[in-house]
Amino acid sequence: MADGGCAAINTKIEEGEGGYILEDVPHLTDYLPSLLTYPNPLQDNPAYSVVKQYFVDVDDTVAQKIVVHKNGDRGIHFRRAGPRQKVYFKSDEVHACIVTCGGLCPGLNTVIREIVCGLHYMYGVSKIIGIDGGYMGFYSKNTVTLTPKVVNDIHKRGGTVLGTSRGGHDTSKIVDSIQDRGINQVYVIGGDGTQKGAAVIYEEVRRRGLKVSVAGIPKTIDNDIPAQRAINAAHVEAESTENGIGVVKLMGRYSGFIAMYATLASRDVDCCLIPESPFFLEGKGGLFQFIRKRLKENGHMVIVIAEGAGQDLLTESMQSMGQQDASGNKQLQDVGFWISHRIKDHFAKEHNMAITLKYIDPTYMIRAIPGNASDNVYCTLLAQSAVHGAMAGYTGFTCGPVNGRHSYIPFNRITEKQNKVVITDRMWARLLSSTNQPSFL
Amino acid sequence: MADGGCAAINTKIEEGEGGYILEDVPHLTDYLPSLLTYPNPLQDNPAYSVVKQYFVDVDDTVAQKIVVHKNGDRGIHFRRAGPRQKVYFKSDEVHACIVTCGGLCPGLNTVIREIVCGLHYMYGVSKIIGIDGGYMGFYSKNTVTLTPKVVNDIHKRGGTVLGTSRGGHDTSKIVDSIQDRGINQVYVIGGDGTQKGAAVIYEEVRRRGLKVSVAGIPKTIDNDIPAQRAINAAHVEAESTENGIGVVKLMGRYSGFIAMYATLASRDVDCCLIPESPFFLEGKGGLFQFIRKRLKENGHMVIVIAEGAGQDLLTESMQSMGQQDASGNKQLQDVGFWISHRIKDHFAKEHNMAITLKYIDPTYMIRAIPGNASDNVYCTLLAQSAVHGAMAGYTGFTCGPVNGRHSYIPFNRITEKQNKVVITDRMWARLLSSTNQPSFL
Amino acid sequence: MADGGCAAINTKIEEGEGGYILEDVPHLTDYLPSLLTYPNPLQDNPAYSVVKQYFVDVDDTVAQKIVVHKNGDRGIHFRRAGPRQKVYFKSDEVHACIVTCGGLCPGLNTVIREIVCGLHYMYGVSKIIGIDGGYMGFYSKNTVTLTPKVVNDIHKRGGTVLGTSRGGHDTSKIVDSIQDRGINQVYVIGGDGTQKGAAVIYEEVRRRGLKVSVAGIPKTIDNDIPAQRAINAAHVEAESTENGIGVVKLMGRYSGFIAMYATLASRDVDCCLIPESPFFLEGKGGLFQFIRKRLKENGHMVIVIAEGAGQDLLTESMQSMGQQDASGNKQLQDVGFWISHRIKDHFAKEHNMAITLKYIDPTYMIRAIPGNASDNVYCTLLAQSAVHGAMAGYTGFTCGPVNGRHSYIPFNRITEKQNKVVITDRMWARLLSSTNQPSFL
Amino acid sequence: MADGGCAAINTKIEEGEGGYILEDVPHLTDYLPSLLTYPNPLQDNPAYSVVKQYFVDVDDTVAQKIVVHKNGDRGIHFRRAGPRQKVYFKSDEVHACIVTCGGLCPGLNTVIREIVCGLHYMYGVSKIIGIDGGYMGFYSKNTVTLTPKVVNDIHKRGGTVLGTSRGGHDTSKIVDSIQDRGINQVYVIGGDGTQKGAAVIYEEVRRRGLKVSVAGIPKTIDNDIPAQRAINAAHVEAESTENGIGVVKLMGRYSGFIAMYATLASRDVDCCLIPESPFFLEGKGGLFQFIRKRLKENGHMVIVIAEGAGQDLLTESMQSMGQQDASGNKQLQDVGFWISHRIKDHFAKEHNMAITLKYIDPTYMIRAIPGNASDNVYCTLLAQSAVHGAMAGYTGFTCGPVNGRHSYIPFNRITEKQNKVVITDRMWARLLSSTNQPSFL
Repeated sequence: MADGGCAAINTKIEEGEGGYILEDVPHLTDYLPSLLTYPNPLQDNPAYSVVKQYFVDVDDTVAQKIVVHKNGDRGIHFRRAGPRQKVYFKSDEVHACIVTCGGLCPGLNTVIREIVCGLHYMYGVSKIIGIDGGYMGFYSKNTVTLTPKVVNDIHKRGGTVLGTSRGGHDTSKIVDSIQDRGINQVYVIGGDGTQKGAAVIYEEVRRRGLKVSVAGIPKTIDNDIPAQRAINAAHVEAESTENGIGVVKLMGRYSGFIAMYATLASRDVDCCLIPESPFFLEGKGGLFQFIRKRLKENGHMVIVIAEGAGQDLLTESMQSMGQQDASGNKQLQDVGFWISHRIKDHFAKEHNMAITLKYIDPTYMIRAIPGNASDNVYCTLLAQSAVHGAMAGYTGFTCGPVNGRHSYIPFNRITEKQNKVVITDRMWARLLSSTNQPSFL
Repeated sequence: MADGGCAAINTKIEEGEGGYILEDVPHLTDYLPSLLTYPNPLQDNPAYSVVKQYFVDVDDTVAQKIVVHKNGDRGIHFRRAGPRQKVYFKSDEVHACIVTCGGLCPGLNTVIREIVCGLHYMYGVSKIIGIDGGYMGFYSKNTVTLTPKVVNDIHKRGGTVLGTSRGGHDTSKIVDSIQDRGINQVYVIGGDGTQKGAAVIYEEVRRRGLKVSVAGIPKTIDNDIPAQRAINAAHVEAESTENGIGVVKLMGRYSGFIAMYATLASRDVDCCLIPESPFFLEGKGGLFQFIRKRLKENGHMVIVIAEGAGQDLLTESMQSMGQQDASGNKQLQDVGFWISHRIKDHFAKEHNMAITLKYIDPTYMIRAIPGNASDNVYCTLLAQSAVHGAMAGYTGFTCGPVNGRHSYIPFNRITEKQNKVVITDRMWARLLSSTNQPSFL
Repeated sequence: MADGGCAAINTKIEEGEGGYILEDVPHLTDYLPSLLTYPNPLQDNPAYSVVKQYFVDVDDTVAQKIVVHKNGDRGIHFRRAGPRQKVYFKSDEVHACIVTCGGLCPGLNTVIREIVCGLHYMYGVSKIIGIDGGYMGFYSKNTVTLTPKVVNDIHKRGGTVLGTSRGGHDTSKIVDSIQDRGINQVYVIGGDGTQKGAAVIYEEVRRRGLKVSVAGIPKTIDNDIPAQRAINAAHVEAESTENGIGVVKLMGRYSGFIAMYATLASRDVDCCLIPESPFFLEGKGGLFQFIRKRLKENGHMVIVIAEGAGQDLLTESMQSMGQQDASGNKQLQDVGFWISHRIKDHFAKEHNMAITLKYIDPTYMIRAIPGNASDNVYCTLLAQSAVHGAMAGYTGFTCGPVNGRHSYIPFNRITEKQNKVVITDRMWARLLSSTNQPSFL
Repeated sequence: MADGGCAAINTKIEEGEGGYILEDVPHLTDYLPSLLTYPNPLQDNPAYSVVKQYFVDVDDTVAQKIVVHKNGDRGIHFRRAGPRQKVYFKSDEVHACIVTCGGLCPGLNTVIREIVCGLHYMYGVSKIIGIDGGYMGFYSKNTVTLTPKVVNDIHKRGGTVLGTSRGGHDTSKIVDSIQDRGINQVYVIGGDGTQKGAAVIYEEVRRRGLKVSVAGIPKTIDNDIPAQRAINAAHVEAESTENGIGVVKLMGRYSGFIAMYATLASRDVDCCLIPESPFFLEGKGGLFQFIRKRLKENGHMVIVIAEGAGQDLLTESMQSMGQQDASGNKQLQDVGFWISHRIKDHFAKEHNMAITLKYIDPTYMIRAIPGNASDNVYCTLLAQSAVHGAMAGYTGFTCGPVNGRHSYIPFNRITEKQNKVVITDRMWARLLSSTNQPSFL
């Protein structure tokens, strides 16, 4: 995937007074300038007729920078999400498809439900299909017909009714299938990798000059109840034995957000290890020394580790170990197992300090639960934003809140590091202060 | 309480370029101009030393208006919360008190814990007391000594370890007690009424010229799991009988926010009644007609009602009923019981349509649970904001996120209707569209 | 319903050595002596072929009395539940119906599911229908076809997919409907009143000489998690105010079992009031005096009251109040509201002791949840017992564990007081000792 | 530990009419015949004075065999648990200790709390200590003073406040410590291994002729909510991908009870593997073939495996793999990881059928939760039984329900296989019928 090229095509920058910058998303009319528009059918919907100024002003933008100085620059803005006065599709012309890709997270089914219900009840769309089993389903499987009735109760179930998979992104075959089936709105639900795939689909669609809106809906995991349960369990286990250590691995291959928030929420964690903050094991200021110290002080400790933390150390371990036993090594690639193993080894060999370590991996129990109440409201807003955007002719965009306001964000933004923990930020300082762990610097 | 006067004293307006307005909060130096300042002790804290630019720039403000046009006005801003380079209290000079007032909600104990831990670990403060049992505890009860050890596990319990009460706000006695005990930082945790009480304390403190910071921490209820459980139960009960109706009352004397979000989150609700949207029972377009229609269509229905909805109808009912039976009438003042009674009556008398109605009031089960993970993080930020603000000499302020960024907000803002559902807004339209209920207009 | 007659018809007593008594259940051959038998199709089922002695010996009985003396009497026994070598129905001859009556409780859908699956997979039965909406559904509604596919996931939902109602028991119309539709196995799920209704259906079926097995499956509520949540909430509310009182009403019109177990499980309850143990309010040794004492000692208290407790006092209150206000009085018939009202009145008028009372009624939230894991296993055993019994030609029986072993119990046993708390028993003494409440004797 | 010798000493058999057998537990007077007795102080306790016949008749026994024939043998009985008219300790003479050993399970703290409260409130005992950290705490650590105040809220926490450990059972040092500290009642809480340790302590105590009652309280895991959550998660993950397999490992080194009940409760499990039922992987009728078949039928499947299942296969795997990589092999000793690895290997190498396997191990999340309501009641009865038994002079016994009635059971019974799944029993047939898995015979 050519990120550079992607950025080049997508970037639509507009500037205004006071340092105002708008990073806009593409629109079908960028390459199909003569498209017809139609009045938004919502204007005749009784539920919306009570609302004054229901439609989003075409000039509304959302400020990314909201901590400002009196006479400072205004900074970057994004296009506000929401229904427009004019739409670029007639209701009976729309043929929408929905696909879910990558790992599970709570709320996928709510997003699917709300795209279907939004298209149906707000825009009178009746041709909606589901792609089965992720990107590869476009070209290797039959589709599923989606109606409000079919999706009515799916938000009460975890997972995704459409199925999912990793990989399988053959751009050309996917766009062939979109074209052959006459699909003109593509809703892609998934994480960062999935959104990058959607960007490439958008580019190919644009290259072929098709009237097809491609909208990305980023998935996130907010429901942290099972993470807290895992940390509680680790704490109880650790407390119940002498020199008890509880290790909990949480999701986050490239980002420690989930680990950081779970740690701040719990107060029972003694050390939080994340990808953004490198650490080392041996010697002064290292993890082993800290463990030793904390065990001496408290008799037990709890460690939370994000799945992407310490990858450099892990790779090193793998190499030093050689290739004798594929299966054992493979398991060691689970950072939670690896760190548990290293800690146990260290205290067994070097210090003769008997520890009892319990390792908990709640990942699948977190991913597979249904969305909770706030997930459901959030997913509804995401899905409706995507539907309004596609109907209004925007394409090559992902949806999401910017300072709490739903916006359309260019795909190229997704490739950046916007979701990483900034370890020079106050939130990480709060964590360091709460755990009193070393900064490993 | 003289709101007008309060506003007059509190309002500190500053204007800038592009229509920029800052609604600032009072500062001790507004009336004690010669106060000394000290370096913030956080600068020597190892957990914070890794953070670049840890201190909030004294000019940082947070924009309230973030949906903007290219060359539009910038609108109202608030002072950004966070630690300042200079503080107006020496650590060993601080004598802080914490009081919780009004009804319970999840997270009160987390706020208490984090004020204590924040003062102690970030600012080295050791004199912190709790006021027992709300405002009246200032003058009628002994105080409680609060230390990090005492509050260590309280966030795992519901309620408030300090006790609470309604009313009891005798301003003069309270400020006498503050003065007599030598308290110089007052942290007041509670809802709107409580914040107004804090505003009056601030005014009296200022009138007396005391070096006392008064900080409000607004309580909110976010944990909606028991609300969803109640709606689920109402739905199951309603579905299981012919013409079954489930009625769920949710918190909200003046605002339908909780009812609206619970309804949007659930999808099983057929009608949501809130204070902001008046309704009527009888005749064409009325509630009874809607119930009849929905029962004919679906065989059952679920109604969510905010505790402050339909107060005009309820008052009317009370009056027409006269004063025969105080106890019965009193109970009728519970809007959930009243509407259940009116519905049963209506279908018993007028239509001879046999219904089965089940009324569920989960209020106390919602209020009394401990904060969940996101409550805990949110309450930590609120508490730390309040501590940073008071240490920096701000007073007469309440804390809270503005578009997601924690800010200091003047008390007079609290008297306004900022937390009400705007029924001409898209969120309410979303609800009407999701329930298909009449707009009662 | 003539209980006497019922008992007379039902009672099949057999005696043996050592004081052995068998209280047997009726069998179709009692009045249709020449029925044919068939080999049990389970004998060819691969899942059961590995089991040695799979079939229950025709002479197996279950002892009710298991606390015995060396040479003491053996006492009453019931017929053991389970599959028999011989059955009295051919698979393709069976036409079964299932009906749920009375109030909801967790696990109803699991029982329905397992009757359907048991009949289908164990006995090859394919004609199974559901009666819609309780007893009255037999003669006033259409039936529902039930297959393993239809019931596959219903155990994950609360309530009953068949609907339910109270009353509507017109014996003659019900048996007409059974006869007209050609139904020959009737499974009746519900509480004590429902089981008595099933007894009358059995009698009429027998009077008409029909080859119809009538099996009762008693419903119970075991899932006490919401009850504990309500008690916790009451405790948190009470603790958070001065002289705070939390009142929780739990199910139990005639029995205090649920209230007693919830109290024993919680440890936070100060007083448990049940139908079996009369109490009084005023004067020495009365409830008000105890409340006063406990509030003085602890500052707060929690009261659990079963819905059938104090009915005599309540009736008295109603009468003294006259008939002025039907609606108010009606509400007072809720014992939880009534006692809350009386306590508030008492402390307002007589002692000038300001209390804060919070009343919680979790009933519908308890009834409406799905069965948990142990409910599901229990309901499976109940349902399979009923199916094995009906197939084996037994009729006029209810199923249930006797000292942990599933048995067939004559309907007339249900009219007795076997589910009441015996207040001269050790379990009640345990409760008194744990709450330290007065015995009100 | 010499089981034979143990049995020889412990067994007290008494016989009666009709084939009645009593397997009695030891009593202090067996080897200290001249001990004095005292009236049970409960007779003066107001909570118990309302109870008729409060004390258990000295001849009460509980029948193990309750499925009986009219004139059949009566079988084995155990001594009924409960308070006796006469006790063998004066209140101020008792010096009790409590120890928890082995792995965690929900309810340990409830048992500790109720032993302390039972001794204190029922018998007026004030000298109660806790042994810190399992058996080895007797001789290597200080003890903890236990009072009703100290243990008041511990039942709301998971784990054990006394700490625990495995091993460390040096009988002679333990009994030295008991003797040196003047302890005369020893309460040992833990699983089978722990109970065997208690048996050996009893034997040594008896050998030394000490007036010390040794009572065992067996721990069990009943709270299956997290197990169901894990199975649900496995099911959601499996369903969401093509050829998705979810593997859940549940507790049970020697017994498949937990796995079997969790499977029966869930209905989403396709295969349950337990220690009692050997299985094989390859070839006709093997696991791989079944997986292949089920994936073809349903597209996904869920496997539950007890931790002790397939040990023979696992050992074989280990041996064939040699000793190249200790750490990898060690991990393979986790049967859940091992079977997951074998399944993935098989489908990768032999069939070229792409599967996606997710492995969930909820063990620590199950063990570490607090007891729920029914755990609490159950643990109370266990603890009170133990206290009544020790006070009444019984020793060398474990407590537990026999057909629902609490009884005193000789330690030697614990060494038998009474807690194993009998795969020729109907419950296992039910499971086979519900999963339709092969019997691997």
